Amino acid sequence: MSNFQISEDGVGCGEITGFSASGVHCDIRDKQDGRLDLSLVVSECPCTVAGVFTRNKMAAAPVRLGREMLASGDYFKGFVANSGNANACTGSAGMQDALTMQKLVAEKLDCLPEEIFVSSTGRIGEKLPMNKIEKGIDLAISSLKDDKQSGLNAADAILTSDTCRKVCSASVETDLGEIHIAGMAKGAGMIEPNMATMLAFICTDVALGKGEADSLLRECVGSSFNAITVDGDESTNDTVLLFANGSSGVYIEPDTQEWDSFKAALSAVCGSLARKIVGDGEKITKVVEVCIEGATTNNDANLAARAIGNSLLVKSSWYGNDPNWGRLMDALGYSGAEMSEETIQLWYCEGEDHDSVPVFARGEVFDGNKKLWKAIVAKRQFKIVVNLGTGSGTAHLWSTDLTEGYVNFNKSE
Amino acid sequence: MSNFQISEDGVGCGEITGFSASGVHCDIRDKQDGRLDLSLVVSECPCTVAGVFTRNKMAAAPVRLGREMLASGDYFKGFVANSGNANACTGSAGMQDALTMQKLVAEKLDCLPEEIFVSSTGRIGEKLPMNKIEKGIDLAISSLKDDKQSGLNAADAILTSDTCRKVCSASVETDLGEIHIAGMAKGAGMIEPNMATMLAFICTDVALGKGEADSLLRECVGSSFNAITVDGDESTNDTVLLFANGSSGVYIEPDTQEWDSFKAALSAVCGSLARKIVGDGEKITKVVEVCIEGATTNNDANLAARAIGNSLLVKSSWYGNDPNWGRLMDALGYSGAEMSEETIQLWYCEGEDHDSVPVFARGEVFDGNKKLWKAIVAKRQFKIVVNLGTGSGTAHLWSTDLTEGYVNFNKSE
Repeated sequence: MSNFQISEDGVGCGEITGFSASGVHCDIRDKQDGRLDLSLVVSECPCTVAGVFTRNKMAAAPVRLGREMLASGDYFKGFVANSGNANACTGSAGMQDALTMQKLVAEKLDCLPEEIFVSSTGRIGEKLPMNKIEKGIDLAISSLKDDKQSGLNAADAILTSDTCRKVCSASVETDLGEIHIAGMAKGAGMIEPNMATMLAFICTDVALGKGEADSLLRECVGSSFNAITVDGDESTNDTVLLFANGSSGVYIEPDTQEWDSFKAALSAVCGSLARKIVGDGEKITKVVEVCIEGATTNNDANLAARAIGNSLLVKSSWYGNDPNWGRLMDALGYSGAEMSEETIQLWYCEGEDHDSVPVFARGEVFDGNKKLWKAIVAKRQFKIVVNLGTGSGTAHLWSTDLTEGYVNFNKSE
Repeated sequence: MSNFQISEDGVGCGEITGFSASGVHCDIRDKQDGRLDLSLVVSECPCTVAGVFTRNKMAAAPVRLGREMLASGDYFKGFVANSGNANACTGSAGMQDALTMQKLVAEKLDCLPEEIFVSSTGRIGEKLPMNKIEKGIDLAISSLKDDKQSGLNAADAILTSDTCRKVCSASVETDLGEIHIAGMAKGAGMIEPNMATMLAFICTDVALGKGEADSLLRECVGSSFNAITVDGDESTNDTVLLFANGSSGVYIEPDTQEWDSFKAALSAVCGSLARKIVGDGEKITKVVEVCIEGATTNNDANLAARAIGNSLLVKSSWYGNDPNWGRLMDALGYSGAEMSEETIQLWYCEGEDHDSVPVFARGEVFDGNKKLWKAIVAKRQFKIVVNLGTGSGTAHLWSTDLTEGYVNFNKSE
């Protein structure tokens, strides 16, 4: 199942075939700083595409456009994405701008506009500087290459408040030949499950049916991009797109060994990108894994995990290395999940060992462990395991602490 | 309807009759600082009591006890409350301690234990120091007086991270005689509607039926204590209790002028106490009133108001005097309320004038008003009005900014 190789810097695996990319500077931020801000990825052959988008009702124009494209089209060519401006809350003019971005790319590539996805990320409520975007698209088209550096440039051009590039690639040996996955993502604030200002684009050279691509992506997103939170704010622009162009010649069908291998590798790439987003959350100092077990339902477990992962008081105490388990209990109690003090159990864990240090079990506190909790919570990464003792539902969430730096960073744009 | 006088410092209105109070130091915090930490209020005659409690499933022992008392009893004598320890997540020993507090008070007052309510607020998960509590109760009993200062001492003894006392009283002239209301409350963190570490005790000398007291209190709490948020964290201990002892000789019945007058005054007292809690939120620098209009339902309006009032990004931008309306739109979009960019309208307001400065209306931004928004958001208090344009539902919420000081204050206890 896991006979794949993974490369965390995106350049260590065998070459993905049939995609070219570019990342260019067109000064969308109006800072003349040379920062890459427009990204283009194009496939030689038509791609099957699956997409998962924000559920925010103020979805940005490119998100609404992408949904329509997936609903009405079957094959696609690539995407253009910009940072520095979200093209959200921009009314009908914003939709017009997204359509213009499609058209400008399509004209140069000699394809249909509706084969080109558009993504934007950045400030909400401001019109795109279309004259700059147009020049940027011209430059991006002429810069398109199928080498590693061009792919990394494309990955850099989507970053906003991120402090580092987020890429991951994988290669899988199958009986039918070697197949490849290459992914890029950006964070780093307005991050909450159901996806928040995060973009992720994943390319693969396998061939996939549309329905199969969709179900594979949804499953992988559920346990990766939808299992992270930084600040609980769900953005207007979140998008994950999977492009499968088939250039490896390997067709992936359910109930085959290749399907299982590909799914494991795709899941690993999504998980790696998601952890990179949460690990680069705005001004965070800690990543905390919240594992809920023994809930009445998976939904209850999810409510419980998110109440912990989004509580200001809990997140502030993590920042202060304070194992304030009372705040965890408080958050659990208002989560909406079914529970009672009499059945709940709570552990702090340093690594993978689930029951390493007991904190609370069925109404009793393990006071003698206080020093051990304190040592764990002082780590840069640790785990909290809660068994609600009411059923078999589980959930898993990667969260962060809340720092004075986050508030200072976000007090003005 | 509003023929009542209100006193914001709790001492300016005519004397409430038939209640005595005390607030004493018994060193629950173990700091030998003389800080008042145990509060006792007792009525001469039996009281009708109404109570509203946290919905947190980890409700503290005294909360669970209070619910049981209200379900099974009809008349009550008073309450004992301590700060410095929440008696929450303390298992069966915690319930035993709450019962002991009842019993200690009842023995001295020669009443039944189940006539005495218990409240606790402070750190979660630690056993009450019952030897100190016992001494404190002795002292509180011997200090009971019916003068103003004793009432203020009782109000001071329930404070935790509050920076100031929170009291409010009212007197109402009715054809049947003068009636009085006196209330005290505490904040100041873990504050979210459905009531979060907040306690409020309101005494009145009118006579009220149990059902009438309950419905009056619920209505008043809905528009006051349940319409505030500081950090979105709902506590294990929230309690509002209304004690009506009838010593004024005025019996309040529905559909009378006295009912309307009393309700207006009670509502004003609850509103004043709630605003004092939010205005003293931990390390806040701003109070922001969020008014939602034109929602499909009142519930939708409430979701929209709370999404804005609890968004880390929105609250951080308020702290920075940044009129970042894009973040407001983002929060509205993920609130779960029905809405679309095409019908929504948004204003920043300095005072009571609802449509003072338009920000966004049906897809268009009023860019020319940027300086005006900035000036409003720089105020210590301002208002945001949103009309969702989908119906006639409304909601109203008092929120605060999120500051670096809050995170620093809460990073450890």
